[in-house]
Amino acid sequence: MAQHLVTFHLDDPALGAHAPLHPMHVPTGTLVTEAAHTAGVEITQPCGGQGRCGRCAVQVTNGDVRRRSTLRLTAEDVAAGYTLACQSVVEGDVSVTVPPQEKIERRLTTDRVVAEVEVPIGYDASTMQTIQRVNLSLTPPSMDDQTDDWSRLVTALRQQFGVEEVDVSLPLLRRLGNILRDAEWNISAVFESEVRNQKSEIRLLDLRPTESPLFGLAIDIGTTTVSCWLVDLISGKVVAQAAEYNGQIARGEDVISRIIYATAGGRNGSSSEMQALVIDSINSLIAVACEKAKVDPQNIFKATIAGNSTMMHLLLNIPTASIRLAPFVTGINHMPPLKAIDLGLKINPEAAIDCLPGVASYVGADITAGVLSAGMEDGEQLTLFMDVGTNGEIVLGSKEWLVTCACSAGPAFEGAGVVNGMRATRGAIEEVWINGETFEPSYRVIGNTKPRGICGSGLIALLSELFLTGVLDKGGNLNMHLESPRVRSGEHGPEYVVAWAREAGYGQDIVITHVDVDNLLRAKAAIYAGYTVLAERVGVPLESVERFLIGGSFGKYINVEKAVQIGLLPDLPWEQFQFLGNTSVKGAYLALLNRNERARVTEIASRMTYIELSADNLFYEAFTSALFLPHTDLSKFPTVAQALDKA
Amino acid sequence: MAQHLVTFHLDDPALGAHAPLHPMHVPTGTLVTEAAHTAGVEITQPCGGQGRCGRCAVQVTNGDVRRRSTLRLTAEDVAAGYTLACQSVVEGDVSVTVPPQEKIERRLTTDRVVAEVEVPIGYDASTMQTIQRVNLSLTPPSMDDQTDDWSRLVTALRQQFGVEEVDVSLPLLRRLGNILRDAEWNISAVFESEVRNQKSEIRLLDLRPTESPLFGLAIDIGTTTVSCWLVDLISGKVVAQAAEYNGQIARGEDVISRIIYATAGGRNGSSSEMQALVIDSINSLIAVACEKAKVDPQNIFKATIAGNSTMMHLLLNIPTASIRLAPFVTGINHMPPLKAIDLGLKINPEAAIDCLPGVASYVGADITAGVLSAGMEDGEQLTLFMDVGTNGEIVLGSKEWLVTCACSAGPAFEGAGVVNGMRATRGAIEEVWINGETFEPSYRVIGNTKPRGICGSGLIALLSELFLTGVLDKGGNLNMHLESPRVRSGEHGPEYVVAWAREAGYGQDIVITHVDVDNLLRAKAAIYAGYTVLAERVGVPLESVERFLIGGSFGKYINVEKAVQIGLLPDLPWEQFQFLGNTSVKGAYLALLNRNERARVTEIASRMTYIELSADNLFYEAFTSALFLPHTDLSKFPTVAQALDKA
Repeated sequence: MAQHLVTFHLDDPALGAHAPLHPMHVPTGTLVTEAAHTAGVEITQPCGGQGRCGRCAVQVTNGDVRRRSTLRLTAEDVAAGYTLACQSVVEGDVSVTVPPQEKIERRLTTDRVVAEVEVPIGYDASTMQTIQRVNLSLTPPSMDDQTDDWSRLVTALRQQFGVEEVDVSLPLLRRLGNILRDAEWNISAVFESEVRNQKSEIRLLDLRPTESPLFGLAIDIGTTTVSCWLVDLISGKVVAQAAEYNGQIARGEDVISRIIYATAGGRNGSSSEMQALVIDSINSLIAVACEKAKVDPQNIFKATIAGNSTMMHLLLNIPTASIRLAPFVTGINHMPPLKAIDLGLKINPEAAIDCLPGVASYVGADITAGVLSAGMEDGEQLTLFMDVGTNGEIVLGSKEWLVTCACSAGPAFEGAGVVNGMRATRGAIEEVWINGETFEPSYRVIGNTKPRGICGSGLIALLSELFLTGVLDKGGNLNMHLESPRVRSGEHGPEYVVAWAREAGYGQDIVITHVDVDNLLRAKAAIYAGYTVLAERVGVPLESVERFLIGGSFGKYINVEKAVQIGLLPDLPWEQFQFLGNTSVKGAYLALLNRNERARVTEIASRMTYIELSADNLFYEAFTSALFLPHTDLSKFPTVAQALDKA
Repeated sequence: MAQHLVTFHLDDPALGAHAPLHPMHVPTGTLVTEAAHTAGVEITQPCGGQGRCGRCAVQVTNGDVRRRSTLRLTAEDVAAGYTLACQSVVEGDVSVTVPPQEKIERRLTTDRVVAEVEVPIGYDASTMQTIQRVNLSLTPPSMDDQTDDWSRLVTALRQQFGVEEVDVSLPLLRRLGNILRDAEWNISAVFESEVRNQKSEIRLLDLRPTESPLFGLAIDIGTTTVSCWLVDLISGKVVAQAAEYNGQIARGEDVISRIIYATAGGRNGSSSEMQALVIDSINSLIAVACEKAKVDPQNIFKATIAGNSTMMHLLLNIPTASIRLAPFVTGINHMPPLKAIDLGLKINPEAAIDCLPGVASYVGADITAGVLSAGMEDGEQLTLFMDVGTNGEIVLGSKEWLVTCACSAGPAFEGAGVVNGMRATRGAIEEVWINGETFEPSYRVIGNTKPRGICGSGLIALLSELFLTGVLDKGGNLNMHLESPRVRSGEHGPEYVVAWAREAGYGQDIVITHVDVDNLLRAKAAIYAGYTVLAERVGVPLESVERFLIGGSFGKYINVEKAVQIGLLPDLPWEQFQFLGNTSVKGAYLALLNRNERARVTEIASRMTYIELSADNLFYEAFTSALFLPHTDLSKFPTVAQALDKA
């Protein structure tokens, strides 16, 4: 097959000199994204390489490529050599310049992540924790007692715990004889004690010459962010927290793009690559947390993991194709118990890996963990729990019953699909106010620095203020007749300028376009339709909901008033809303500590009735009615109606 | 470190041209055996590289080496450049000629291995076999039934078997979704069904679009020979047998040498190398058996393995050092359940590997399997079971009690430690008669070919005939005053010529030397002392033994009369002796077929009381008294006394 020379240039001021990368040979038919990947250049592909998002545009400065699609590129772009890297086929020698990528910050700002976590009242490691340790003093073998090493140890464990059988792995068995002799038969055993079929079972995890500290990990694998808590299993204390973007982001920003990438096969993506990416992310978090708390990773004997069903499948490298296609079924909702070595986690190789159970393709272990941490499954009050992340999942019920559904909100509120959207990191506009007479905005930026874009809470505030001041009408259309230079016709149609180039960190105006508003309306309409249809389907009026719990790191920072004003949240008394933060990692933490909480998650998963909305006409109606600010039917939002009257 | 050039020449007519091998560089201090190993030349080291056996002698033809020891070499040998490869250190450039090695024949002669094996009467796979298959017709998922793939399968299995949980490995889980869809939800499941803690447990092994045949392996890992039976688990029939020398032989002929090699570390040997060697042997037998019976190795779902404790430890790569050193304890007598993939066996990766339990360092799973196959543990008769292989193990008892011991007979009866000894393969003298007047021998050779050496049964016959004709006295000394050219003083002292060079396949006289006789006397004395002391220790006179069962491939061919005449077997009525052949593989076969037989082996292992003879003065006395032909006390051998009177 013919080979062609491809040379990449990185046009990124942060990298200094613009020297070309080492040229490389690729065969005819290679995609520019593939060639870049091989060259070590990661081009962001939020849509998963489907040619839909336009984010992977690069400039061909020498030679040419075959363009499969030029969607989202203007005629001028194409004339200037711009092309979508994921849709460009190499058929001759080319030079390609990669524009500055929206670089993923490797650390979330610390103040947004670390909050003191309280150890559950009454935590008692000796009865609740499955990871245990015991000091054993064995009688050394002699000519009168030639019992084999393993039986000698098992007998001692039996005397202590009355168990029948003790499991051990081959690698640990191989080390057994030397450990026992080096420690002169006085050792500390670390083991996992589980009850199965009403019998207690013991699995030996490690043997130490002296008593070992026992640590565990509570992990939440979000589509966007992976969070990890390092926990002292004896005291129950969280000794370190770390969070980082999920390394799979460069292969697609939502679960659908990830599934497409994972199932593409060959050079266009693979399931094992996705697995490696998320495991790398987790391992780097483990390293950070261990470094912070001065913990030896070999002393981590357990990890409890939550995440949506797609994330859990990709973690285990189980095929995801059926999640995406009707009738939307997972390979497995409750993953089998694993060991760290099975996944390549850099902790004790025998450590027990416990993946929490999910319910359906779009209601995963992050939601069962969330319900656990919200304590809703044993409460008397009718509660609505909503996890707003890249997707929106909703659970309604009480200790009597639980129903759940999911709606594909999309990542608009996380900054994707919005021209100047960004994640809630340094430089993001997180709050906006607009003067009702001058239409001039003021805003607050995370980190008190120059603005670079707008994050979720900023977008909610912006939408609400634009609507209340009449810059946007009920249908989300910009009023082009206002006397303000901020409302103008831009490259992508009508837009409102939030920050002028001179104020902004990127030297470009920060705007919100008509298309952005449309995307945001679709996202909020999906969520609103989700919980209203769910309530309707079970015959519970939304007004009877006593508690409205919002999880997800997104939910931590939004302004309730403004979220109600745009019709994202229902018009209930504000005190009924409660923001719980990352309920998924909290639930994983509870299950990590306490075997009873762990059993409870499984019960929650089996009790939850999943309702599929995609097949529901009611949902479609509710969705279209909600594509307005705040809603076609203003009577559903009486406080907003009042505010509009005042404005 | 200084590097030296080493060039090997193979002086082996079978290899044709004598061209030097490709020269190689090795650092100062490398042993010639190590260099040879690296060069791909395997030099036989029956003593495990301890400089004791003299079998690794090579000739230095250019340059010189430092000799750590010249044991077993004559001054002439040394002058001619001969040196022990395992004791020769490279300190400069050298050329080394490797003399013809006693090549290990890759196949035992067929007629010695394959005998029709009878399926146990009443074998019923549906109740006795742990490997089962079932055809399942699943309802495909739909929008009304979005159950995950795994739960859908488990529910079907539950309905069929009423089990609680089903285990599955991650690799199989990864294949699940595609298998189910490709087979359109009609599949045949292969699984292992075990009862643990009174609950039946199921582990899924494979899923097939159509019903799969089910095969299993019964394997005996002998120190010398590995045997493998391929079994149809439905009918119980042995469909193919294969046997081959254990690939570890080149690293030492007895278990002690193997342990020394395995624990040497670094370039002198390693435990993982020993594991790889035996697994290669097993895999090559599997390939041969599958080829013979036209069986796909992926349809082998179980293997039951027996072998002595050292062999089982080396198979799993568990340290063996403590087996060799007082107080002689194993790492583990009952290996945990494994999967084929854990060991690298080339069968279905999920296949259940069941290692039968041993009792002590020198009474292993080969003996518990032997006791099972001999049926002695539930018989009324007082039975003595003896397995004569490289070691000798003895079990005495009945259904009331079982005692056992081991004696290090050494491999003399297998042809090692005897100048012209060899294994029972083509060219081995297996039977000898000596004329009482002319002292001329006649003999029978395996394969009716020219003799190359003498195997175990030949050595027993030879010893007996030499003794009865007066060529040897009671103390094992050759009568140098006989009028026969066959009795002479040779290089190694007094010797008797069994075959002249002109008759022999190697062009050299085949002799038995005084040193050989000594080695054989020590071997038979150890075995005799073993069973007599064991009987004495439990207060049972040897005469009250009702059945005398002899296992081990060695035991299949010896002549009882002659074995009694040299004092290897006790002087009991011949009809009490029964030769059972390879009882270890037979026991493995029974345990492979029937879960009840499997439970019985475990019970046998726990019932057997091990008696350590090495610490016993009685044993030492019995041993020294037995270093005569047939014994110091001729009254213990009345029929031999009669024969001597006649002679």
